[in-house]
Amino acid sequence: MVEEKKRVPGCELCEHTGGELVVSAAAWRVIRVRDADFPAFYRVVWQGHVAEFGDLDSASRALCMEVVARVEGVLRARLAPTKVNLAALGNVVPHLHWHVIARFAWDSHFPQPVWGPRQREVGAPAAVDRLAVTLDVLDDAVRQALADLA
Amino acid sequence: MVEEKKRVPGCELCEHTGGELVVSAAAWRVIRVRDADFPAFYRVVWQGHVAEFGDLDSASRALCMEVVARVEGVLRARLAPTKVNLAALGNVVPHLHWHVIARFAWDSHFPQPVWGPRQREVGAPAAVDRLAVTLDVLDDAVRQALADLA
Repeated sequence: MVEEKKRVPGCELCEHTGGELVVSAAAWRVIRVRDADFPAFYRVVWQGHVAEFGDLDSASRALCMEVVARVEGVLRARLAPTKVNLAALGNVVPHLHWHVIARFAWDSHFPQPVWGPRQREVGAPAAVDRLAVTLDVLDDAVRQALADLA
Repeated sequence: MVEEKKRVPGCELCEHTGGELVVSAAAWRVIRVRDADFPAFYRVVWQGHVAEFGDLDSASRALCMEVVARVEGVLRARLAPTKVNLAALGNVVPHLHWHVIARFAWDSHFPQPVWGPRQREVGAPAAVDRLAVTLDVLDDAVRQALADLA
């Protein structure tokens, strides 16, 4: 585990939380991204600085994906999204983090990835107000879903 | 496992291989996507029709991500890419498949995701000719890396 806690000066996710901190554990943290187009957008950040998923050993990969799957589960249970998108890219910040994003047929980019071209303007109500629950309730549900791992 | 082998009429990944078949097992297959911009682009497709990663039970999730990690490992060992990108989106084809893509600082979209705006034209040599090994060698390495799981 020593290597997994490595911190790299200048790495944005080593030096900053990276978003709204929802829950933090020894090996991982979950943050919520502030994004007006995609309000139900979480990131599972590995606390230690590793660039690639395969840099983790098997047990750490399993833990990491268990966290990802539980966040996905909360999004599905509370929001009934059209789809959940998962991604570990890290081209800009090569510190392992998983995007977990609830997507809806009405959202600004669907069915494009959130990084693709905008498909439409989402008028009133705003995206966050179209969710079945508030972000506070959603954050609480994420915390509860991860309580036994944190 | 019965539910995991469910096939849905009209689903592109139930009815078609989805690309160049590299290796196939009972529960998963690996295909290579023919993409001139991103020649080292594989997909790990779950054979049964499930939409979301969380639809798999814990053992199946572990198996799925072991396959993803091994494909990633081959890309890193053979190509030394700048980064590997992993993603399970499925907005267009909601049948679980993981994109595993070797990315290079010189590629057409880096550091943008492959779904984002093009950053540059890649002149000669073409992307595929910039890889350290041919696609045949790469496919063989993927098969070897997965031989004991297939």
